[in-house]
Amino acid sequence: MKKNRFERVALVSRPQAEGAADRVGEIGAFLCARGVRLLIEERCADSLRGLDAEPASLERLGHEADLAIAIGGDGTMLGAARALAPHGIPLVGINHGRLGFITDIGLDSWRQALSSILDGHYAAEERTLLTARVVRGQEVVWTELALNDVVVNRSSRAGMIELQVHVDDLYMYSQRADGLIVATPTGSTAYALSANGPILHPQAKGLVLVPVAPQSLSNRPIVLPDDVVVTIRVVEGREPRVSGDMQVFSDLQVGDDIVVQRAAFTTTFLHPPGYSYFATLRGKLNWHELPHLQTLQR
Amino acid sequence: MKKNRFERVALVSRPQAEGAADRVGEIGAFLCARGVRLLIEERCADSLRGLDAEPASLERLGHEADLAIAIGGDGTMLGAARALAPHGIPLVGINHGRLGFITDIGLDSWRQALSSILDGHYAAEERTLLTARVVRGQEVVWTELALNDVVVNRSSRAGMIELQVHVDDLYMYSQRADGLIVATPTGSTAYALSANGPILHPQAKGLVLVPVAPQSLSNRPIVLPDDVVVTIRVVEGREPRVSGDMQVFSDLQVGDDIVVQRAAFTTTFLHPPGYSYFATLRGKLNWHELPHLQTLQR
Amino acid sequence: MKKNRFERVALVSRPQAEGAADRVGEIGAFLCARGVRLLIEERCADSLRGLDAEPASLERLGHEADLAIAIGGDGTMLGAARALAPHGIPLVGINHGRLGFITDIGLDSWRQALSSILDGHYAAEERTLLTARVVRGQEVVWTELALNDVVVNRSSRAGMIELQVHVDDLYMYSQRADGLIVATPTGSTAYALSANGPILHPQAKGLVLVPVAPQSLSNRPIVLPDDVVVTIRVVEGREPRVSGDMQVFSDLQVGDDIVVQRAAFTTTFLHPPGYSYFATLRGKLNWHELPHLQTLQR
Amino acid sequence: MKKNRFERVALVSRPQAEGAADRVGEIGAFLCARGVRLLIEERCADSLRGLDAEPASLERLGHEADLAIAIGGDGTMLGAARALAPHGIPLVGINHGRLGFITDIGLDSWRQALSSILDGHYAAEERTLLTARVVRGQEVVWTELALNDVVVNRSSRAGMIELQVHVDDLYMYSQRADGLIVATPTGSTAYALSANGPILHPQAKGLVLVPVAPQSLSNRPIVLPDDVVVTIRVVEGREPRVSGDMQVFSDLQVGDDIVVQRAAFTTTFLHPPGYSYFATLRGKLNWHELPHLQTLQR
Repeated sequence: MKKNRFERVALVSRPQAEGAADRVGEIGAFLCARGVRLLIEERCADSLRGLDAEPASLERLGHEADLAIAIGGDGTMLGAARALAPHGIPLVGINHGRLGFITDIGLDSWRQALSSILDGHYAAEERTLLTARVVRGQEVVWTELALNDVVVNRSSRAGMIELQVHVDDLYMYSQRADGLIVATPTGSTAYALSANGPILHPQAKGLVLVPVAPQSLSNRPIVLPDDVVVTIRVVEGREPRVSGDMQVFSDLQVGDDIVVQRAAFTTTFLHPPGYSYFATLRGKLNWHELPHLQTLQR
Repeated sequence: MKKNRFERVALVSRPQAEGAADRVGEIGAFLCARGVRLLIEERCADSLRGLDAEPASLERLGHEADLAIAIGGDGTMLGAARALAPHGIPLVGINHGRLGFITDIGLDSWRQALSSILDGHYAAEERTLLTARVVRGQEVVWTELALNDVVVNRSSRAGMIELQVHVDDLYMYSQRADGLIVATPTGSTAYALSANGPILHPQAKGLVLVPVAPQSLSNRPIVLPDDVVVTIRVVEGREPRVSGDMQVFSDLQVGDDIVVQRAAFTTTFLHPPGYSYFATLRGKLNWHELPHLQTLQR
Repeated sequence: MKKNRFERVALVSRPQAEGAADRVGEIGAFLCARGVRLLIEERCADSLRGLDAEPASLERLGHEADLAIAIGGDGTMLGAARALAPHGIPLVGINHGRLGFITDIGLDSWRQALSSILDGHYAAEERTLLTARVVRGQEVVWTELALNDVVVNRSSRAGMIELQVHVDDLYMYSQRADGLIVATPTGSTAYALSANGPILHPQAKGLVLVPVAPQSLSNRPIVLPDDVVVTIRVVEGREPRVSGDMQVFSDLQVGDDIVVQRAAFTTTFLHPPGYSYFATLRGKLNWHELPHLQTLQR
Repeated sequence: MKKNRFERVALVSRPQAEGAADRVGEIGAFLCARGVRLLIEERCADSLRGLDAEPASLERLGHEADLAIAIGGDGTMLGAARALAPHGIPLVGINHGRLGFITDIGLDSWRQALSSILDGHYAAEERTLLTARVVRGQEVVWTELALNDVVVNRSSRAGMIELQVHVDDLYMYSQRADGLIVATPTGSTAYALSANGPILHPQAKGLVLVPVAPQSLSNRPIVLPDDVVVTIRVVEGREPRVSGDMQVFSDLQVGDDIVVQRAAFTTTFLHPPGYSYFATLRGKLNWHELPHLQTLQR
């Protein structure tokens, strides 16, 4: 039996996702056959009945695993990254449906991909995370970790929210809008993209601030270096909210400061040989199909 | 004394707006001196103490006035139009701050503008309104009138809303987004514009559907003829909402149909001679200042 | 034999398009079998050797045909419409590749579609055309007809072009940009769409002005009623050009006026029963595939 | 007399710019009084008649000056930076009209600003430049240096250009568009901004690729790390062109590769104390004026 590069491998999935349990079972069996010590997130431990796999909390997986494999969609991967990044566990993403932006291994290729990775053949890619905290007076009333984005917005009942943004204590702008997104490169292909933000390559060491439906028509997304501290003050707005990767803090108040900065740690994605970020973009954004508009008509 | 084109003139304002009361007093005095019969919306009747002006509800103004003058910002004008349009009362808008899109007479020119209008010299401009109703099963559970727009969106806690849109019973598209705006030409320079919609000239007989942060990147605003019926079904989404000119219906539910169509009546804005819609656009959107970008830098 | 609704049917194609000749031959044979009198655009007459088809110039087809069938892509249809619209000949578009925006009948369905149309079962759809002329002093130095758009732009060597636009003799705006597109509803899904213009439904009686890379960031596409006269003056710019449906006039000069208005005639497209403009949009713009972005990632 | 931080100071201007000569004269006199050794670009040497200033070519200024002061608009600054950057001469920009993006010292404050800078009180800001070269077969047929951008586009006669882009030899995408812009952070507020690109903070170590009027509607600007090599192959297009900071190479051909990468040197801008990049953005883009849209109307 080959020596595995990673000895203790954790499986993370969402038990309720249709078809995921079967997939987890197959992948678990494959890994057992490879001779790794298998850990399984306790919520989906049922998927591995009959295998020699140890159920554990995400917290414990963070302490004990050498590698984690997320099986599901980008959301599953996102949750795993947020939980395991502080522990430095690298992640592999296997999609059980259409390929995602960050779950780039498909059902037709996971065996070969996992073999390569366990053999030590992979490309490691670091991804930046953000920390967000809400400061009210002298007190921190909320903190969150985000791999995609931190979003400040208004309730759907209210007209808009007014925000004042400082970067490293320098005043940048005031913004009236539906909301404001602070996205990492990873998040630049999520919500920020639908709000007309640019794509940031994972190695472009930047954050992007993207307003949603800004009242000032000359407003544009702005890319900042990723070592800044962005402070967003809620100046006006009914029922304002802030979220990190969609984990919502509903008690945000006028006068609160939302402080966003790069987390002290990153998360590492492992890709099988031949992985291309650009190929993912082309596939997800239909760039492969050229042209959308009929050339001849033009 | 000159004969006035309009004999019974109503003043409409928001009593709480700073400085508005003084302005209403001055304009009221001017109109009394012109010999018109003055009606005053009861909420701001205090502004006309000492003048021979009859306080009345908006409803009664609708029945008795020949002309209404809205004093305030675009919001005041919008409220007046929604209340008076069913009665066919033409409207004049005087802005007590910076000129608005639809309150186009400034503090430095209202005397001359009103004189001209009372003398019968004006340009009348019809504006389309929308009616919206929410249909649940066989029942209509909400109706609203809108001069600007009907907006369907999601709660700020939720990820997105999925809507299915039919036009005259033909399936148009399904849309995952923060929300969807159906705007009149008047509303095309309001919220729809900040969501990247086009400007519709008031005489362009169209409606425009503008998605807010649509997940499908090839989605675009679409302009429809204004005699269609747009039916928007809520397919998915937590805490969906619909509003007409920001009057919110919070009890919108998955499965509800929002039916939007042109109202049976229009509202008529009266402008003093020399009014130009394009001049308003240039002023409001800073088009007068050319260029924004330094030509030379390019 | 069934009575045909149209007796003299013209075939129009581009002889050089790969595979087009075979298609023209098949369709010609089908039409002969239906008993119509067949006319064939002389440039592709070779495709019908052996059939009883009369070669004729586009001009003569315009005088003699009851119906024209364009076989090819949207460009072929565009050329046919421009040539035949003045004569009032309705058009059918058969695409020999991927379906186009205006050639909506595919290779798998043309027999049934043509049968229906010849039987008199079809939906007729009128499309607006534009006329453009360049006025220099008192003289008209160029005229063109356009089904899609009239485009004024600068040479690729120059920085930008400055244009001053009047609508019905009212000054609208000055524009510094790469160019300015005046598009019909038909053209709103061509070049104008790639320059961020809205989609105009064919029945939305409007024109849309879409700037390409405008220097003023608050500039937006603007939809005008389609009965206006748009006058575009070239204020500055090296090697300016104007084109109608890509037919370029290279001798445009600073000081020239480009006058654009709706043509006195329309063109009529015939669609088989069941045709849906929205289905074409969904197909061409990939709206059928929902969502582009991974919901879960967000 | 105070000791000056910089001993040999060069003045660079465009002699033909209106009012520039007087300004150059005043600034020259001020600098002489400060006791610096004055060098003057030979093209505008006439502005300094009577002063002890040595006319020199830009090339010689690059070898002999410690500091260069550009007087004019952003274009003047751009030209000076391109010429002097290889020599490592820091630059100060004084605008003689409306403040520019990179000429941030106004006519009302240049005395104080220059005093501070000569005293050694300033903020130094490094800006990235690009080199571009056209490779045909094995031969380099054109090279250029750019502080703003490298632009590949088509002739205005042609429909579009097709480009294939590789990043560090990895295939990224094929693009049909009017053109493609590769911009530095400095250039992100120039042409790229009007083509809907994001703003890149000067310290965000990135390049941005912005397509102009791309046919693929899901195309978006993409920010890359600035240490990559971008290779753009011209696949199709009549009369293609490439330019670096608007210096055009007209002989570009189908099959050519345009290779763009960060220059080996940067340029350094000196700003007086209190300079804020964000203040420049707010001023140039009218962000100070809030809101553009009438809140109340919405």
